Amino acid sequence: MKARVHVMLKDGVLDPQGEAVRHALGSLGFDGVGGVRQGKVIELDLADGTSEKTVREMCDKLLANTVIERYDIELA
Amino acid sequence: MKARVHVMLKDGVLDPQGEAVRHALGSLGFDGVGGVRQGKVIELDLADGTSEKTVREMCDKLLANTVIERYDIELA
Repeated sequence: MKARVHVMLKDGVLDPQGEAVRHALGSLGFDGVGGVRQGKVIELDLADGTSEKTVREMCDKLLANTVIERYDIELA
Repeated sequence: MKARVHVMLKDGVLDPQGEAVRHALGSLGFDGVGGVRQGKVIELDLADGTSEKTVREMCDKLLANTVIERYDIELA
């Protein structure tokens, strides 16, 4: 089975990477780009039957810094 | 409107970040993690009516290195 985890900075946490992308898009002539947030996506190949709880544990222990980041999990 | 872009290394391109995550998950006692790929997710606030073609241009020009990365776009 596969799991896909999105890790994004929480709202209110400054995102300099996203800000740099927004600025660069403006410089390239793309108008109307209001805001950009950049995060990570992690695709995991897991043993069949791995529970969402286990994936959540992986996120809490390693994949995300829950002080400043939020994550969401898609199992497929 | 919002757009979400996923940028992942193409299959066959070595992903040291993903490999490090896989190794670390093993060290933490998570068994059955076969493979891990790490990529970027970019959330864009765009002016209403921005076409997918425009977002594709942003990807080709700035957001992804299409030599080694593939991207996919979700508009919402």
